[in-house]
Amino acid sequence: MQDKTDTYSFTVDPFDTDCNNRLSWHVLGTRILSAATHHARRRGFDQFEKDHIPYLWVLSRMVVEIDHWPCVHESYSLSTWIRNYYRYFTDRYFLLLDDRGVPIGRILTIWAMINSQTRMPAELNSIFGNSFDQYIHLDDTVDIRRSRIRVNTPMIQTERSTFYSDLDTNGHVNSIRYIEYVLDSLPSQLTMSHPAKRIEMEYCAESYVGNLLNISIEEASPLLYHAEITKPADGKATTVCRSAVTF
Amino acid sequence: MQDKTDTYSFTVDPFDTDCNNRLSWHVLGTRILSAATHHARRRGFDQFEKDHIPYLWVLSRMVVEIDHWPCVHESYSLSTWIRNYYRYFTDRYFLLLDDRGVPIGRILTIWAMINSQTRMPAELNSIFGNSFDQYIHLDDTVDIRRSRIRVNTPMIQTERSTFYSDLDTNGHVNSIRYIEYVLDSLPSQLTMSHPAKRIEMEYCAESYVGNLLNISIEEASPLLYHAEITKPADGKATTVCRSAVTF
Repeated sequence: MQDKTDTYSFTVDPFDTDCNNRLSWHVLGTRILSAATHHARRRGFDQFEKDHIPYLWVLSRMVVEIDHWPCVHESYSLSTWIRNYYRYFTDRYFLLLDDRGVPIGRILTIWAMINSQTRMPAELNSIFGNSFDQYIHLDDTVDIRRSRIRVNTPMIQTERSTFYSDLDTNGHVNSIRYIEYVLDSLPSQLTMSHPAKRIEMEYCAESYVGNLLNISIEEASPLLYHAEITKPADGKATTVCRSAVTF
Repeated sequence: MQDKTDTYSFTVDPFDTDCNNRLSWHVLGTRILSAATHHARRRGFDQFEKDHIPYLWVLSRMVVEIDHWPCVHESYSLSTWIRNYYRYFTDRYFLLLDDRGVPIGRILTIWAMINSQTRMPAELNSIFGNSFDQYIHLDDTVDIRRSRIRVNTPMIQTERSTFYSDLDTNGHVNSIRYIEYVLDSLPSQLTMSHPAKRIEMEYCAESYVGNLLNISIEEASPLLYHAEITKPADGKATTVCRSAVTF
């Protein structure tokens, strides 16, 4: 167990919060991605290179459920482990813990490893063989369901350009940035007074600097919004990601 | 000296970098603001309240000069102290240090304290009396010049909307976000290949969610850009901030 799960501790710094004085989605999301990288790095599978071509871990799905948001100067931690791996994907779970170690949130992430040149996913078994097996933590206590996200009749349609400051080390728009694009497209009266308590992300394609993204949002049920972000590619709209946000 | 200067240590996390794998302006800027708050908080002058009205520290000027950017997994630290205070403003300096403690950057910040309701600056002496005196560190080794920033004939004019995710705990667009607005308005071929080595910011007015900012940029000399960000107010353009960026 101690070789399978790592825990990273943080404090909410004065500028880690949103305008509601709660830990921001930006900072929480970045901590989740970094914790995944640190956990993988300590076990030697954070990166891989074949024929001088680096392979990159990219996020395919993410579900974040928060019961209680840490506020400024409060401590919190993230525990993470690998729950499973498949042909192309691996499931990584997280628990968000408050300063007493009590769970206040659950996170499911699903990752693929892509060839940095072709951007195509690689078979995990052909890269890592059985070396993952010793790190699989068959924990069933964290139960996170994925849903089907579809936007049929959007109530909001807006555009958003992508810029240099939206990019991360992989040269594409950072996965967490799409969460902000979706929240920013909702009425600010809502986001500035209610913290989102659940966000589900389906990442479908990368976007790059200078893309003009189209964001469509539909109210699937009261306080549940489905969003789809597309980019123009080859004369048609390609889905970049889908999102479901519950307030 | 030990009561005057505090030092905060960090490591460049995998998602703290920009697309060039160097510490991002966003993270460095946030660390600077947080270090200022922590330093003030430990000495009891991070906040003030009078007649049940909170007063807030706001950034008036910032000059950041970076000789060498920390890269992913590298350690760095920020030392900060107060250099002086005037009727309405206080000068706070920082040194950016690499993992061996060698200075790799210098930062000057100038702060005012505003009434959170009227948004008008308060006389520092009337709030803090002489209690600042013991913390003034008369260090002359850090020499940072301010310049005169004017945009007369812009070569770039662009607009940018402000959103929920751009706000900080003060309910206004975060000071560091304007640095990103300016960098994002420059050609991405430049920002994606050259790190800015000096950025100067003059903050003139606040902006809020839903503002449509106008960004004008002029090449003042080769690799030096002057920028002005305005917002519409009372039928005319009000300057929100000015910036000078050197590559």
